[in-house]
Amino acid sequence: MNNPDLPTSPADVPLVELWRGGQLESLHRGHAVIWGPGGIEHSWGDPEAVIFPRSSCKMIQALPLIESGAADAAGLTPRQLALACASHQGSGMHVEAVTAWLDALGLAEPDLRCGSHRPKDDDEDLRLRLAHEAPCQIHNNCSGKHAGFLTWTRHAGAGPEYTEADHPLQRAIRAATEEVTETPVLGVGIDGCSAPNFATTVAGLARAMAAFAAADPEGDARARAMARLTRAMATHPEMVAGEGRACTTLMRAMGGHVAIKTGAEAVFVAILPESRRGIALKITDGSTRASEAAITGLLIRAGVLDARHPAVAAHLGTQRNWRGLITGAIRLAPGFAS
Amino acid sequence: MNNPDLPTSPADVPLVELWRGGQLESLHRGHAVIWGPGGIEHSWGDPEAVIFPRSSCKMIQALPLIESGAADAAGLTPRQLALACASHQGSGMHVEAVTAWLDALGLAEPDLRCGSHRPKDDDEDLRLRLAHEAPCQIHNNCSGKHAGFLTWTRHAGAGPEYTEADHPLQRAIRAATEEVTETPVLGVGIDGCSAPNFATTVAGLARAMAAFAAADPEGDARARAMARLTRAMATHPEMVAGEGRACTTLMRAMGGHVAIKTGAEAVFVAILPESRRGIALKITDGSTRASEAAITGLLIRAGVLDARHPAVAAHLGTQRNWRGLITGAIRLAPGFAS
Repeated sequence: MNNPDLPTSPADVPLVELWRGGQLESLHRGHAVIWGPGGIEHSWGDPEAVIFPRSSCKMIQALPLIESGAADAAGLTPRQLALACASHQGSGMHVEAVTAWLDALGLAEPDLRCGSHRPKDDDEDLRLRLAHEAPCQIHNNCSGKHAGFLTWTRHAGAGPEYTEADHPLQRAIRAATEEVTETPVLGVGIDGCSAPNFATTVAGLARAMAAFAAADPEGDARARAMARLTRAMATHPEMVAGEGRACTTLMRAMGGHVAIKTGAEAVFVAILPESRRGIALKITDGSTRASEAAITGLLIRAGVLDARHPAVAAHLGTQRNWRGLITGAIRLAPGFAS
Repeated sequence: MNNPDLPTSPADVPLVELWRGGQLESLHRGHAVIWGPGGIEHSWGDPEAVIFPRSSCKMIQALPLIESGAADAAGLTPRQLALACASHQGSGMHVEAVTAWLDALGLAEPDLRCGSHRPKDDDEDLRLRLAHEAPCQIHNNCSGKHAGFLTWTRHAGAGPEYTEADHPLQRAIRAATEEVTETPVLGVGIDGCSAPNFATTVAGLARAMAAFAAADPEGDARARAMARLTRAMATHPEMVAGEGRACTTLMRAMGGHVAIKTGAEAVFVAILPESRRGIALKITDGSTRASEAAITGLLIRAGVLDARHPAVAAHLGTQRNWRGLITGAIRLAPGFAS
């Protein structure tokens, strides 16, 4: 467990650089681990650095939903399972899907416990403003996860305060987290959506992603659930985030072969079933720009993302200003992902 | 000059921390200097770290505007001088002010060279979307600076490509930069708005801000120009940024006694005339969240900002999620600003 007196893990290393005018302007440090069938294949920084996975662990948080039988009892589709693992941008499509899901459960928006925020989707945001309508909890980027939480809660006959740390759902998620990370929970935080978030190590999170990657679709209940969630995410990238967002564009660029997920404060994970590898990374400063650049670099390195794919240019390489002039570049730090 | 082979200045130090669930979740390193009448009073990290000041140096870029006599010839008001030093959010008020300024010069939007981007101001953004109107260069957060550039260019009878590095305006700005920072230009980058941006050290930038702070309103031409710009910024905080933005809310909280300015990639400066001190800081990772927290801390430390003022809570202290639950805190790192 981190010593709270220490201001930082001293072992983080440069991962991503921003260059301007031939000089280094900004720099992002962090930790990254690639976990393969034999354990850690590569690491940068400290694999044992303790992090909050934030939304990057939504596929772990969805395991009880499937393993309990709740998902099948509710007839959830792969598209809904992808939404349960999503940080969506609250577009009309996402809002309709969550609304219909709650309706099918006989529940409604007030049953959610995620809180409300403005949708990141421009069109839905404009629609709300023109209708003089406040955003509701369904617009919260985590509302699909919470619909999954409510599906479990309804199936289990558990109480409505499903985000409380001692609620049976959160106890089940905590147990699943410890099992797939093979690491005891190293701390508990409250996430933006009010659900508990369990601290683990970067290596533990990468190990969990490798377990998802290696899961046999015909295996035991845990393996079947993992394989089903990975497939749902990889084949419905539009549900996991939204148009123009890194998770969606990069998963599309990888043609359904890989599932990836971002988390707040610059966590990013990837599940690579064909090579049975899992990736986890954390940028120390919490910058999404850097976590997106870093995962892009690691996916290219792993051979699952074509460096020339147009989706890559949003995260790595030449930077231009509002008049299209080249101002510099975002690069991987020397020694990272090489 | 930075060695471009070095991935970072090794001497940056922790400045700002994000805590969650009793654990350090994210950390921002950087450099900060307080420059007083006798030189450096306090520093954290490396005072000689080379940085691009970005928009934090707009008051330096406005010196030729006043010193040439162009500002007086055009009858510029303090409100317009504040706008020349602004990174405004493109609200209706800012758009009207720049439009009227260009009109008075007999110029128009196509004469600008800053490029277009969507305004950060929600109401103006909504207005544009409803009118099916694209944002124009006047919405660019730097359009006030560029109106000042055009005022100088018109007055000097110089050519229209005023953002080119060899344009007489940019040569004048480069000379002023070297004079007030007392540091040779250490690199040239192209800024988001296409103007050249001259690299200097954190100490050089703090020294320049101290020169603004100490400038005698009845002194020589340089001192009068500096005092006039500082006063314009401090007394028109709404023109320097906009409603809800750190520069505006913190300057308001300091009641016109202090001028502050943010720059992209997490630079922040402050001019404290009453104590003749200047402050400059750079967060290594470029995070505005951290530069705002750091300058807030330094202003409190300097005794010019009340730690209990409501504007402080946006940048330092308890963090809450969408349901109002406490999730953690943004804190100054141990040893910083104490």
